Amino acid sequence: MQQGNRQLRLVSRPTGFAGPEHFETAVEPLRAPGDGEVLVESLYLSIDPAMRVWLDENPGYVPPVGIGEVMRAGGVGRVLESRIPGIEAGDYVQGRLGWQSHPTLPSEGTQKLDLSLGSIEDWMGPLGTTGLTAWFGMRAVGNMARGDRVLISGAAGAVGQMAGQFAKLEGCRVVGIAGGPEKCRDLVAEFGFDAAIDYRAEGDLSTAIAAGHPDGVDLFFDNVGGETLDAALLNLRMKGRVVLCGRISQTAGKKRYGITHTGLLIGKRARMEGFIVSDFGGQYGEARAWISEKLKADALRQRLHVIEGLDTAPQGLAMLFRGENTGKLVVKVSE
Amino acid sequence: MQQGNRQLRLVSRPTGFAGPEHFETAVEPLRAPGDGEVLVESLYLSIDPAMRVWLDENPGYVPPVGIGEVMRAGGVGRVLESRIPGIEAGDYVQGRLGWQSHPTLPSEGTQKLDLSLGSIEDWMGPLGTTGLTAWFGMRAVGNMARGDRVLISGAAGAVGQMAGQFAKLEGCRVVGIAGGPEKCRDLVAEFGFDAAIDYRAEGDLSTAIAAGHPDGVDLFFDNVGGETLDAALLNLRMKGRVVLCGRISQTAGKKRYGITHTGLLIGKRARMEGFIVSDFGGQYGEARAWISEKLKADALRQRLHVIEGLDTAPQGLAMLFRGENTGKLVVKVSE
Repeated sequence: MQQGNRQLRLVSRPTGFAGPEHFETAVEPLRAPGDGEVLVESLYLSIDPAMRVWLDENPGYVPPVGIGEVMRAGGVGRVLESRIPGIEAGDYVQGRLGWQSHPTLPSEGTQKLDLSLGSIEDWMGPLGTTGLTAWFGMRAVGNMARGDRVLISGAAGAVGQMAGQFAKLEGCRVVGIAGGPEKCRDLVAEFGFDAAIDYRAEGDLSTAIAAGHPDGVDLFFDNVGGETLDAALLNLRMKGRVVLCGRISQTAGKKRYGITHTGLLIGKRARMEGFIVSDFGGQYGEARAWISEKLKADALRQRLHVIEGLDTAPQGLAMLFRGENTGKLVVKVSE
Repeated sequence: MQQGNRQLRLVSRPTGFAGPEHFETAVEPLRAPGDGEVLVESLYLSIDPAMRVWLDENPGYVPPVGIGEVMRAGGVGRVLESRIPGIEAGDYVQGRLGWQSHPTLPSEGTQKLDLSLGSIEDWMGPLGTTGLTAWFGMRAVGNMARGDRVLISGAAGAVGQMAGQFAKLEGCRVVGIAGGPEKCRDLVAEFGFDAAIDYRAEGDLSTAIAAGHPDGVDLFFDNVGGETLDAALLNLRMKGRVVLCGRISQTAGKKRYGITHTGLLIGKRARMEGFIVSDFGGQYGEARAWISEKLKADALRQRLHVIEGLDTAPQGLAMLFRGENTGKLVVKVSE
């Protein structure tokens, strides 16, 4: 069956959560690749918190997705036709596929998957941006060291799961913060966290963190921002490090929470630092080699949360902000 | 004339600014030094923002000054009698003199002044904690580099003046934030800042910073915290560094300002870090050698703001928080 390229395009900018009402469907004819391009059939598309930021008029660090443009998204696909040397029809590639079924992609940003390192699903999680973000955040930014008392917010999310497991593999004590008893149970039972805090159930979050890490926190990997960050600052140890990876609590246009405990960083000689994983592009190889080894040794788990069909992508983005996913959220576009 | 040791002791903990009502005067007989001690006549005592923090019940990084105890303070004095090897009567020492006229000090924390590096007054400013704080904050924490766009808050204060001059000597472009037209004029005319922002006069501080540094800020040295810090975060450049030295706007028990722009640190790959100068104790020698050289070359100015008499010390502490000092505030206890 000859299909067209089904696309989801942005029609209006959300002020709060993004949802189906902000996108429209279009079908274009497939476009044959020019020199240095590949035509791809999308398999999995990634749903990430950062995507909501790209919908704002001024994301700051990247250009916004324009009105009328196909929604930007990373993913994995199968090559139908290639005019990039070294990539052939039938190969699998990752790249900026966008929310579309049959993108034609430039060579820049498109990479052939090395399936000797892991499966296609592994490339959507631990070997992809998710795993790399956790890896460089914990190591290059957070200077993770054996014995560190580690705290992770958004711990049941894609990056949080990985960050916590990396810390356990390095001999750290790890406490995760997540929403709901089920996620918390999984963090301990399935992902090996030492303890988990249900931020929806506990009274005062700072007190709950202190109970989880009675001697304080050396390294806080933050995906949430706002009140969670403030509570963690209260529990930071001397020379503590706060890795700012995301701020999902503050992203979708709600009134921003004001952090009142930054002054504690002075007496604690502590540091708070943001990062974007693509800055470490030159070191992806060594990170993936290590991650692949752990995957093969069955020492690293990932949970893909799969939703089916391209058209579910906008709902997926909303799910992420309501905390309805456990682990890496992906859209399965085709088999 | 044989005097006693006049002391100012803490009688109650302030909730807002500290003032004379929180201290009482006592006169004790001079105490002859035991083995490893010196008896000193106080000359200058330092008045620093951190002293207000020491009056809180839980300063965090140091023990509080206890009720009934002599107020803790650094200073310089002349040795009357010594039982520390290498220190003789007539020498000048710096140390934790406290608010008293004739302290008896232990060898730990007491150091003979090397007057070949600078005058006694220089040791109260550029060669003392003030200069060292600016030096290690800008260099070791802030990674100051030639060409950096530098912003300094509390710029007319003791540490701010030094930090700005160090940055100018390193070839940075320096904008200072201070309160009032007089301080701002001095920063430019006397201390060589490229521009100064009067936070009392300007409308929106963030806009004023953007006008002073149209391309943004590489390095922000913050003595103020709160709203000033938040405004600076908005103007930070990629890979920007925020050195948290003090938070005088947030110190004296007022309601804390909530910082809303920490999330920007992510996209900007920026860093915010606190420090305490004493952590760099092992490197004071090299810093002082450099500072001394600049002093002798007349390339570094300091303005001591001198108030007269031990009993004025509590008023001095209040002046600091009302921003009434220009430069390093010291109490002259005797000639």
